[in-house]
Amino acid sequence: MAGPDPAVAAVRLAVRRALADVLDGRTAGPVLVACSGGADSLALLVATVFELRGSGVRTVGVTVDHGLQPGSAEHATQVVAQMAALGVDETLSARVHVEGGGQGPEAAAREARYAVLEEVAQHFSASVVLLGHTLDDQAETVLLGLARGSGGRSIAGMRTAFDVFRRPLLEVTRAETVAACAAEGIQVWDDPHNTDPAYTRSRVRHAVMPVLERELGPGVARALARTATQLQADVAELDRQAAAAHARLDGADGLAVSELEQLSDAIRLRVLRLAALGAGALPADLTHGHLRSVDALVGDWRGQVGVDLPGHVRAVRRDGRLAFVRAPGTV
Amino acid sequence: MAGPDPAVAAVRLAVRRALADVLDGRTAGPVLVACSGGADSLALLVATVFELRGSGVRTVGVTVDHGLQPGSAEHATQVVAQMAALGVDETLSARVHVEGGGQGPEAAAREARYAVLEEVAQHFSASVVLLGHTLDDQAETVLLGLARGSGGRSIAGMRTAFDVFRRPLLEVTRAETVAACAAEGIQVWDDPHNTDPAYTRSRVRHAVMPVLERELGPGVARALARTATQLQADVAELDRQAAAAHARLDGADGLAVSELEQLSDAIRLRVLRLAALGAGALPADLTHGHLRSVDALVGDWRGQVGVDLPGHVRAVRRDGRLAFVRAPGTV
Repeated sequence: MAGPDPAVAAVRLAVRRALADVLDGRTAGPVLVACSGGADSLALLVATVFELRGSGVRTVGVTVDHGLQPGSAEHATQVVAQMAALGVDETLSARVHVEGGGQGPEAAAREARYAVLEEVAQHFSASVVLLGHTLDDQAETVLLGLARGSGGRSIAGMRTAFDVFRRPLLEVTRAETVAACAAEGIQVWDDPHNTDPAYTRSRVRHAVMPVLERELGPGVARALARTATQLQADVAELDRQAAAAHARLDGADGLAVSELEQLSDAIRLRVLRLAALGAGALPADLTHGHLRSVDALVGDWRGQVGVDLPGHVRAVRRDGRLAFVRAPGTV
Repeated sequence: MAGPDPAVAAVRLAVRRALADVLDGRTAGPVLVACSGGADSLALLVATVFELRGSGVRTVGVTVDHGLQPGSAEHATQVVAQMAALGVDETLSARVHVEGGGQGPEAAAREARYAVLEEVAQHFSASVVLLGHTLDDQAETVLLGLARGSGGRSIAGMRTAFDVFRRPLLEVTRAETVAACAAEGIQVWDDPHNTDPAYTRSRVRHAVMPVLERELGPGVARALARTATQLQADVAELDRQAAAAHARLDGADGLAVSELEQLSDAIRLRVLRLAALGAGALPADLTHGHLRSVDALVGDWRGQVGVDLPGHVRAVRRDGRLAFVRAPGTV
């Protein structure tokens, strides 16, 4: 008897690795799978059903209706029916309301999606929610972060696991998920957003990646994903050290300049960022340029009055200490 | 009286900043400028002559003839004449012999170039050699590193300063150097290698970067360069900590697994790399994949015999220690 299709096997192996603790009986509750109806999340869903078969752990398929496209409710109903037909123990369609906010529609939809998935996980007492992001999604995320130019943090890509979420397919290509669905006769949905050039991610996928692959070689997506993995370890370690340094240095009237000067550039800039955020600076608007200006109060001080930061926060140096205060004139 | 052209001013400011210690009289000897005859290094050269005028510090212009292109000797002679006409105190043309080696012609030429520039610096007792790499070169270097996928180290780009070398123009664009030369009526040479699609860097410059700028926005080159700067600080700090950990752990019969286990992923992988290189593993061929296999001897040991590394080095675990030995059968 022949084994499964290679793409099916690759997806199953990735899921098996990501669920090692679940299969060992070390977690409680069912496993949730977030499913859009696209090839990536459907391949993830069927592999999860396959791997959990006979384990006693139930699989819950969840689809999120953002209400952003015409017919999204009908689409959600179809995905629910498809998930049920694929052998999921329980299915759910969760409707979310996406607020515009200041962060753009993609970020707002993502935030709403993760929030509702956490709620659903709580409802089912699930300790694991699987997301279908692939190696190609990871490569695109790295490129998008590069374009922002905000350092290792922004190009470290998506994490393999955080909170209840896990991404088993970050080393599986999008093409493998498509092939896996085809091999299992599963009909997949192509999200029109994915080809809409109004979205930066879509332009990265369809205009940037093909050029990179043509000019630099077909291994570019994998190389980008590998870089992300390595940077995650680096960023995590430096963030951990900076949090410890910040906790140690943080006093009622700010941070002692003499102690900040002892820190390496990598740690000191992170400590300044933590202090600024702690005082209410806006994380999305706080740039490396801002932090460099604040850092000049430490290492290149020639009597500057202070540095204004987004979120009505001002960094000021006085009496040998650096303090982050509400900017004058704000509440 | 109007000030200088903005591009000329930008190049001069960058050079002034890079030579602060020289202008303060804190260094000895002349300043060497490596000059290919291209816009970037000619802009650098004239700005250096301008900034050092009256300082008592002499400027030496050096052009390196790699002997790789027909007519390269004549070109070198022209660059020498041009440098002299631009007011350099002393000029030199250094001929190098580029060995193919296993590293490709671009890397071999670069290595030969840096070696001869160091020799020339010693000859003139110069403590500073200026290189004309621009922000665009930096962005291309980051992309080339990304395509290799070897983590933060490879995308941290070129350093602002190392050994005797300094790169004052890493925050100046190539277009600014072209504009600066035009404003000063300086005729520039276009290296045919720069447009030869046989070179990966040339393809990055002419095929990849324009697509990135079109799809992600015109600030991409600057964003890539900014990312490089931030990663350099991160990589430097983690490398420093890893070197200290390696020095502490390194014993006659290898590294104690129990101590390796105490290290964070970011530091442990670097310690393993240092140990492998110390035993003779080849840096250019030692991949993150190799290091992950070695790391499995620490954190996921199920009796593996050992891991073979490029350069006839084998990592073996025995008696609770990890040792890097010459692979059997090699001298």
